[in-house]
Amino acid sequence: MGGDHAPEAIVAGVAKARDQYPELEFLLYGQTDQISKLLTDQTRIELIQADEVIGMNDEPVRAIRRKKKSSLVMAAQAVKKGEADALFSCGNTGALLTAGLLIVGRIKGIVRPGLLSTLPVIGEQSGAFNLLDSGANAENKPEHLHQYAILGKYYAQKVRGIANPRIGLLNNGTEPHKGSKMTQETYQLLQADPAINFIGNIEANTVLQNEADVIVADGFMGNTLLKSIEGTATAIMHLLKKTIMDSGVSSKVGALLLKPAFKQLKAKMNQAQYGGAVLLGVKAPVVKAHGASDAETVYYTLGQIEQMLKEQMIPDLVEYFSNLNQASENTNNAANKEK
Amino acid sequence: MGGDHAPEAIVAGVAKARDQYPELEFLLYGQTDQISKLLTDQTRIELIQADEVIGMNDEPVRAIRRKKKSSLVMAAQAVKKGEADALFSCGNTGALLTAGLLIVGRIKGIVRPGLLSTLPVIGEQSGAFNLLDSGANAENKPEHLHQYAILGKYYAQKVRGIANPRIGLLNNGTEPHKGSKMTQETYQLLQADPAINFIGNIEANTVLQNEADVIVADGFMGNTLLKSIEGTATAIMHLLKKTIMDSGVSSKVGALLLKPAFKQLKAKMNQAQYGGAVLLGVKAPVVKAHGASDAETVYYTLGQIEQMLKEQMIPDLVEYFSNLNQASENTNNAANKEK
Repeated sequence: MGGDHAPEAIVAGVAKARDQYPELEFLLYGQTDQISKLLTDQTRIELIQADEVIGMNDEPVRAIRRKKKSSLVMAAQAVKKGEADALFSCGNTGALLTAGLLIVGRIKGIVRPGLLSTLPVIGEQSGAFNLLDSGANAENKPEHLHQYAILGKYYAQKVRGIANPRIGLLNNGTEPHKGSKMTQETYQLLQADPAINFIGNIEANTVLQNEADVIVADGFMGNTLLKSIEGTATAIMHLLKKTIMDSGVSSKVGALLLKPAFKQLKAKMNQAQYGGAVLLGVKAPVVKAHGASDAETVYYTLGQIEQMLKEQMIPDLVEYFSNLNQASENTNNAANKEK
Repeated sequence: MGGDHAPEAIVAGVAKARDQYPELEFLLYGQTDQISKLLTDQTRIELIQADEVIGMNDEPVRAIRRKKKSSLVMAAQAVKKGEADALFSCGNTGALLTAGLLIVGRIKGIVRPGLLSTLPVIGEQSGAFNLLDSGANAENKPEHLHQYAILGKYYAQKVRGIANPRIGLLNNGTEPHKGSKMTQETYQLLQADPAINFIGNIEANTVLQNEADVIVADGFMGNTLLKSIEGTATAIMHLLKKTIMDSGVSSKVGALLLKPAFKQLKAKMNQAQYGGAVLLGVKAPVVKAHGASDAETVYYTLGQIEQMLKEQMIPDLVEYFSNLNQASENTNNAANKEK
């Protein structure tokens, strides 16, 4: 029920995904009377009534703790109990992240889950890159970013089909010693880990150039980067439009002739094709699509979730961090024995 | 002598500024034989030979400490000794900032100078905004940002003629409690200071919308913001060009007809008109123009310096922080007397 075009856009996207992916089933939580009116065919779709509502401005933690009959809490509980395998929403981002953290819960060994976004590469080449943490946290420690490198690597392998993802660290210069104490320590951790194909520091002016498949950053920095790229792109496209509108007839003719090229440009910069933002580090895919998502975007996002489930991303991550923990315990036990 | 087009672009820009501003005199440090060949008229221009060179990749602090006969160190020394009133360079940014800090020196009461950049507003309206710290520091404390608000305010008043500059704090949300511990504390400091027209938090996706005249941020965040805006703008313009080139004949005709509109767009986004980046918080204007600056940009930057000197920006800042210090001492003395 969350999002600007709810429930219409969500239901339409769900119906399309249901037709496209025969292995998927959907549990839709919300106002069942509104939802059922929009569905001609309820095959593999179950509707569950949710009487409480978490509003866009509700404080997340309080909402999750109190509104137990909200669609979000009920859906998260279903995932926790194993009745469902993934959680999707277009609504209150903070509430979804909180539900992921407090109800679905962290994978054992993960210190601080982060939000992974996918942005288009708009340089010489086509493609995309992942950014993690793009805004779940306001502050992070080096060990969080070390874990983001692994989480991002698994996402890029499983969902984007990249065999050996290049991992970069967002920094204010390319040299290894650059940045804050936090980034300096993170650099060392990433470089020392043989599991990470670390390609070094990436500056914010070259992130769009396909230098890395996954870029790790603390949540405040990542969120700033994400918002400024989006804001700048939006502002330039508006300015372009405005400049053309304010110019003479020949400019408008020119704009008409360039319509296909502008359309292509817009398509290249469109994030929707890559799905939504994923809270990585919790025990199931928890995915947030943009509030303004249309049915097509919802459909793409459900396909993104399908890929994560099909490729067993979460079980593989659980195993990885379990082995890491085991290896670490073995090392500690051996050291204790020596003492 | 620093910069991609040195010494030609710098000398041409200086000559133009010399003609435009009769109250300005110039001391040019570098290879005097090369420089004098480029000058037909040496009125109010003095050439001083500098035998050592600070290269673009020299480690700044070591370079400043050792290469005492480099043009940068000699020029900074002249400012320190009062033989010159301001310092300009297109060369090694780190070295210029270090020279500003270690040779020109901090205004009494300033804890940590910051770099101020000017970016164009590319939303509905025209104009510009200042960002401080845009990259002098890798980490900052709340009290630094508090001082950046004052430094930015004086810059916006003196150089941009804004009577009561709106000061914003770069943050990951608009609510007062948002962000890291650092931004939360900074918010309180800014809000409590009657000298600051604080308009609250600004998010990175709306900085280009003319919501604030001065935006304060820690140096790492500010640098990330600056680079990502520049990088995104560059990438989009290249993509636009490439899309047109790869399209058919009618697209190319369209592009030709839109040439004036594109030119206008480029002009609006051009930072050069606003001058260079200013190290604020030191005892004289210390200004860095972009390495790729042409003569026109150098000329604009010298005009920017002229404005700072004419409007007495540094003396007024010295007085402001001296009074602040005095008031603080008075409060301490009164408190001690009571004890």
